[in-house]
Amino acid sequence: MSTPQRDLISPTNGEPTPVILDNNNTPSATLTTEPFPASQKIYVTGSDASIRVPMREIALTPTKGPNGATPIDNPSVTVYDPSGPYTDPNVAINVREGLQPLRRKWIVDRDDVEELPEISSMYGRKRAKDTSLDSIRFALSRKPLRAKSGMNVTQMHYARKGIVTPEMEYIAIRENQTRELHEEALHANGHQARGVVQHPGQAWGAAIQSRITPEFVRDEVARGRAIIPSNINHPEVEPMIIGRNFLVKINANIGNSAVTSSIEEEVEKLIWSIRWGSDTVMDLSTGKNIHETREWIIRNSPVPIGTVPIYQALEKVGGKPEELTWDIFRDTLIEQAEQGVDYFTIHAGVRLAYVPLTATRMTGIVSRGGSIHAKWCLAHHQENFTYTHFEEICEIMKAYDVSFSLGDGLRPGSIADANDAAQFGELETLGELTNTAWQHDVQVMIEGPGHVPMHMIKENMDRQLEVCQEAPFYTLGPLTTDIAPGYDHITSGIGAAMIGWYGCAMLCYVTPKEHLGLPNKEDVKDGVIAYKISAHAADLAKGHPGAQARDNALSKARFEFRWEDQFNLSLDPETARIYHDATLPDQAAKGAHFCSMCGPSFCSMKITQDVRDYADQLKVKEDEAIQIGLQEKSEEFRKAGGEIYL
Amino acid sequence: MSTPQRDLISPTNGEPTPVILDNNNTPSATLTTEPFPASQKIYVTGSDASIRVPMREIALTPTKGPNGATPIDNPSVTVYDPSGPYTDPNVAINVREGLQPLRRKWIVDRDDVEELPEISSMYGRKRAKDTSLDSIRFALSRKPLRAKSGMNVTQMHYARKGIVTPEMEYIAIRENQTRELHEEALHANGHQARGVVQHPGQAWGAAIQSRITPEFVRDEVARGRAIIPSNINHPEVEPMIIGRNFLVKINANIGNSAVTSSIEEEVEKLIWSIRWGSDTVMDLSTGKNIHETREWIIRNSPVPIGTVPIYQALEKVGGKPEELTWDIFRDTLIEQAEQGVDYFTIHAGVRLAYVPLTATRMTGIVSRGGSIHAKWCLAHHQENFTYTHFEEICEIMKAYDVSFSLGDGLRPGSIADANDAAQFGELETLGELTNTAWQHDVQVMIEGPGHVPMHMIKENMDRQLEVCQEAPFYTLGPLTTDIAPGYDHITSGIGAAMIGWYGCAMLCYVTPKEHLGLPNKEDVKDGVIAYKISAHAADLAKGHPGAQARDNALSKARFEFRWEDQFNLSLDPETARIYHDATLPDQAAKGAHFCSMCGPSFCSMKITQDVRDYADQLKVKEDEAIQIGLQEKSEEFRKAGGEIYL
Repeated sequence: MSTPQRDLISPTNGEPTPVILDNNNTPSATLTTEPFPASQKIYVTGSDASIRVPMREIALTPTKGPNGATPIDNPSVTVYDPSGPYTDPNVAINVREGLQPLRRKWIVDRDDVEELPEISSMYGRKRAKDTSLDSIRFALSRKPLRAKSGMNVTQMHYARKGIVTPEMEYIAIRENQTRELHEEALHANGHQARGVVQHPGQAWGAAIQSRITPEFVRDEVARGRAIIPSNINHPEVEPMIIGRNFLVKINANIGNSAVTSSIEEEVEKLIWSIRWGSDTVMDLSTGKNIHETREWIIRNSPVPIGTVPIYQALEKVGGKPEELTWDIFRDTLIEQAEQGVDYFTIHAGVRLAYVPLTATRMTGIVSRGGSIHAKWCLAHHQENFTYTHFEEICEIMKAYDVSFSLGDGLRPGSIADANDAAQFGELETLGELTNTAWQHDVQVMIEGPGHVPMHMIKENMDRQLEVCQEAPFYTLGPLTTDIAPGYDHITSGIGAAMIGWYGCAMLCYVTPKEHLGLPNKEDVKDGVIAYKISAHAADLAKGHPGAQARDNALSKARFEFRWEDQFNLSLDPETARIYHDATLPDQAAKGAHFCSMCGPSFCSMKITQDVRDYADQLKVKEDEAIQIGLQEKSEEFRKAGGEIYL
Repeated sequence: MSTPQRDLISPTNGEPTPVILDNNNTPSATLTTEPFPASQKIYVTGSDASIRVPMREIALTPTKGPNGATPIDNPSVTVYDPSGPYTDPNVAINVREGLQPLRRKWIVDRDDVEELPEISSMYGRKRAKDTSLDSIRFALSRKPLRAKSGMNVTQMHYARKGIVTPEMEYIAIRENQTRELHEEALHANGHQARGVVQHPGQAWGAAIQSRITPEFVRDEVARGRAIIPSNINHPEVEPMIIGRNFLVKINANIGNSAVTSSIEEEVEKLIWSIRWGSDTVMDLSTGKNIHETREWIIRNSPVPIGTVPIYQALEKVGGKPEELTWDIFRDTLIEQAEQGVDYFTIHAGVRLAYVPLTATRMTGIVSRGGSIHAKWCLAHHQENFTYTHFEEICEIMKAYDVSFSLGDGLRPGSIADANDAAQFGELETLGELTNTAWQHDVQVMIEGPGHVPMHMIKENMDRQLEVCQEAPFYTLGPLTTDIAPGYDHITSGIGAAMIGWYGCAMLCYVTPKEHLGLPNKEDVKDGVIAYKISAHAADLAKGHPGAQARDNALSKARFEFRWEDQFNLSLDPETARIYHDATLPDQAAKGAHFCSMCGPSFCSMKITQDVRDYADQLKVKEDEAIQIGLQEKSEEFRKAGGEIYL
């Protein structure tokens, strides 16, 4: 439970494990900030010194030469890194001050925003004046920004005007990390990277470019095929992009509920989830002090933050959906936009007419937002107010550059309800709303299900692309079966990988606690790792250039018994090491040419090396072997085999 | 480490947690045998009283009527149950005596086998006479069986002669468990089960039948499209089938290695892995006392046991592949066949000509069997002896009804090596060998990779079906990325689900310890659960009739807040319960209409029920809603909406 009187005390810089202390000086949250093993944060600078794109560089050990020959160096591997300054030991972390506003200058230099004298939201002002909240309030001195009258400050607006923003250039550099720096290294090792492999039957809007340029980023955003969630009031964000011609992204949900958890825990979960690779974080708080919790999260977040504003609006009316009003909702949007929320889930597709379609479902409406709107619609016999006021919402969004995440309030909550009339009816409306938002140059992505058996996943993706004119799809899973509560990071990781391959741009994680309880820190990590696997598997299947570099480096390390490199290249080096050491804890085993699975004499990898050495001895030239390797020549080779080995 | 002097003492029957004691009376293994919660073992009897097919019946609680109305009963759910007599409290378990030989009468009644005066294998005789092994030897009094001279005792042979064996009838009943008993119940709840949904583009050899008949089983086995692994010397086996027109099966690997684990631990892992749902178990032991370990495993196994005989053969020549001979290998096959091994992995496709194709691979040869044969081929400049002696191997297989699992010794060990010339070259040879085996009426399945990115999985399945003429495919994963050691049950669970959907008949599990160490009990469970998820997701995607019954029952329980039922219907009831109780431990919360994720007032499921009640009040008839639900009518309905809700 949240304790309103608690004081948040910043960690001491430079301590190995910073903690957040409560007002009794008792640690209430632990921030894990040390860099990953053998890793260092590097920055690639763009055309301006202010464009400094972070990447994680993993150093590798050399390959031992045969029989004491000179070791051969292995180039370091650079990976996409959403963990922010927390993993950079050169940056002082102080959660009470928040992160540096790295985008501030870019935003102000565009000369289309104004600093407001005070926050616009009535509710926000009330909270600001409530002295009983002083002890839990993040002390932000700067004032909120808003577009000047008549101005539109969305990245889509700039893109459509042909402007390449610093955010776009930053993203181009960031998305190239797995290719520019690595393809060369890969070739140097004698292994060809695969070319672009397009999924047969998948109508890509554009071929994936071999190298992402700032102009390509601009063009994708202008077309609405990608979004850059980047509220002008979240200058701390390290720009990133969501679109199917870029790396597949993942989102982690955090947030306190009426039943459990505190502000400190949520800040801790934020930093923890981006450490493991989450690209955006949604704050789904429904408990006390939602406003204050969100401020702490945004000020300390280098990744875009999404919310579901209806949750807080409902809190304001005592949890009674029928008492919601457009005015309360509107004030909530402005309140959150001025705090810096980067995207809003808005369930404007839950129209009155679709509600009865859910009555015969196995599991009715399972989206919280969807059910709130449905109840309101029925109670008032009126159309959803976010649908009827959609253009006014667009006006708010474009004044701060908040992106839409059009919510799937009628998503199926069970295999039985997948791809039904309610779901696809709502999707039609989301397509219509996408057009409306685009008329305002407001960025849009579309949320998707849910629970879907494998054979129905592609239909979801294909319909979404068609109906929503290629706006990025952002799906929860989907879960491919209902029978494994406790393992829904796996049931859904399967569906997530597949829909990522089919073209989904961002995957919302599901933790093992889904359907059962609120995730703790370990669950958050398990969910993020499962989804990093799904996203990366999708990048490989899409043939995303350079995506395979990390797989190749790890497999090469594995084959050469470079155990430390194998651990360090993995998504979770610590767990890989612990699992290995469970049977062979000695440091000497890290150099051993065998493992506990087979023991010294049975190792197939070792035998393969023997085979390779043997082939070398017999002077089977590598290029000859490659040529023979062409499948149609294998029969010919078989016939010649006797000679080669005599 | 295995202690040769250890005495294996049976557990006391009726004890809640039987243990295996060593000769110091110290527990060295724990057998988990209690039934799953709310579950009982039932038996469905066939045309003969000896055909008693076990199933697990999960009892459910009633649905509460609205406002105190009479509760509505929910029918129990019956699930496929490979856990054997261990989960039947009415069966006395004694691991020193082994399980009852339930198939013995069927085998003997066919009058085509003879009891041998002693075991045929030279090595087996030597072990039997070695008194130093007495303390670790399973005391089996019965003699081995073998086909009478000139007879063929394979299920395929019977099938092709038009004979429906008791094994086939048993299997027909077993495979129907999710449909005959449940479809009716499902309809009674007002929810339609889906019809057969075939994967578009997947050329099914036969449409999935709505009900499996003994004749259908016979026909599939006769065509070679399914196998029944059932050695005449493994009468303890509860018959099961592997083929793509049946439920997707999973295999768990156990076995000691030169570095770790003991006989007791392996028996414990066997019982543990079938408890969680493994359909077959492979004993991959490579350490000491392989012969004796295997005997304990087979005598206590109700599921088919597979082995890789070359592992033991290599042990017999001190771990030096070049010293292997056909005679040693042949003696090993006979030794294991007379113990009752149900299927042999034989790497007869690793031909001399293919070996150099692996020299330029990222990870060479990663199959242990493959690398052993490759080294032998190169050392002798000769063709693989299992290829040249393949017909003699068939003669052995058909004398005991051992099925082939033709090994993929050249499977890719990394994403970079997927679908290359070495892999597909070997597959061509496996197709040729399938034909040869079928000429002997010997049952065959084909092993498959390995590491394959998602977009290359279907090519694997399609080629296998074509080249091997629809013999069942049995794949290891495949892993869809290399970058997550420690989580390879997930990287591979994705690929396993997909290839199962595409038509793979059995999925060989991968545990979280893959690539890092030997799995312990917890890893075995994690691997089995992940693969049960993949197999079931595949059954759903194939539209396997009745597969969705369990999903529907669980989702209905979830929607109605029947928490206990939700736990009990899940693959791992204990974990589901623990996760729920982590936040809401009170027993009262098990009846609560909310959970810790949202708290009482935000619960979408609760609100949905309100919506449904409201719709009822407004007399929106269910059939009307269903009709309106047709998508093309939604617009019409929208227009009429005002009236309906007035």
